[in-house]
Amino acid sequence: MNKVNIGNNVFIPMLVVIVGANVEGKANFMAVGWITRVNAQPPMLAIGINKAHYTPLGIRENRTFSVNFPGADMVEKTDYCGIVSGRRTDKSKIFKVFYGETKTAPMIEECPLCMECKVVETVDLPSNTLFIGEIVRAYTDKLFLTDGKPDFKKINPLLFTMPDNSYWAMGEYIAKAWYVGKKFKQKNE
Amino acid sequence: MNKVNIGNNVFIPMLVVIVGANVEGKANFMAVGWITRVNAQPPMLAIGINKAHYTPLGIRENRTFSVNFPGADMVEKTDYCGIVSGRRTDKSKIFKVFYGETKTAPMIEECPLCMECKVVETVDLPSNTLFIGEIVRAYTDKLFLTDGKPDFKKINPLLFTMPDNSYWAMGEYIAKAWYVGKKFKQKNE
Repeated sequence: MNKVNIGNNVFIPMLVVIVGANVEGKANFMAVGWITRVNAQPPMLAIGINKAHYTPLGIRENRTFSVNFPGADMVEKTDYCGIVSGRRTDKSKIFKVFYGETKTAPMIEECPLCMECKVVETVDLPSNTLFIGEIVRAYTDKLFLTDGKPDFKKINPLLFTMPDNSYWAMGEYIAKAWYVGKKFKQKNE
Repeated sequence: MNKVNIGNNVFIPMLVVIVGANVEGKANFMAVGWITRVNAQPPMLAIGINKAHYTPLGIRENRTFSVNFPGADMVEKTDYCGIVSGRRTDKSKIFKVFYGETKTAPMIEECPLCMECKVVETVDLPSNTLFIGEIVRAYTDKLFLTDGKPDFKKINPLLFTMPDNSYWAMGEYIAKAWYVGKKFKQKNE
């Protein structure tokens, strides 16, 4: 074993989204890198947010939040949402805001893909809260669809790595999933 | 609002890892796309796994699991781990396996980055289980380090999108985080 021990506080590549919530009736947005799908049926997402942040107040207030996927061309505004806190700065006018079925999850018109979620479970961890939300509805623009489904090569989402604190685009196509491994399967049977 | 409603079952871009667990004393590996960091201190990850899978048996048995990041050149074996179940196929010999401090989380020597985790919380969701694990130790090879930290441009992790079922590489550098947004901040002050 030639591997070196690099401690335990190692960050993994992240997808960058803008989470929206109404705090005391006003739309607020924050950049979030800790997100994953967590349940197949019904479809659920989880987002991990530091307890000190302002946005969780609105998520707890309305039991809803939005997840908005900025295109790489929106990197300035996305990063801004991660730099300034809604506690001190009004972020309700940065984007064109729209609402869907939940009525209380502010979504971003400029983002190629938006989802409104209702909170189904809250997991209290030492420094962060994990909000598990059921996806109520997702919205996109027709130009980001291929065969009626969102096409992430067109959406051009932002990725993020730490501690180099860098944003990245999604890169080249590598292979087809649930397919390319069949070659290895055949070799080993 | 020109957005179209595309239902609620929309997948978001994923990072592909190989999760390892010992099931009844034998190393087993599965491809997992639902993963995120969830807590800052102590460092914790969450992985979402369908309840029908074999690997959760081992995670529950030992209360440990590993998270291994395959480079894009490992796509065949990674996909294979997502195609065949440990219930029917012995996957313990596919990789060179090593163990760390937990002794029961099998890690993959060929993967540029490996982490061993101990389970701190299990969230039971309708179709999936969310295992929240504290990162005990992470391991890499010196060639993947820049300034002593894992460099994901060198690690070359695999990304994954559905329903096109495609693997992607990480792409071009876009901008510096907690920095590029300062331009927008200055314009708006």
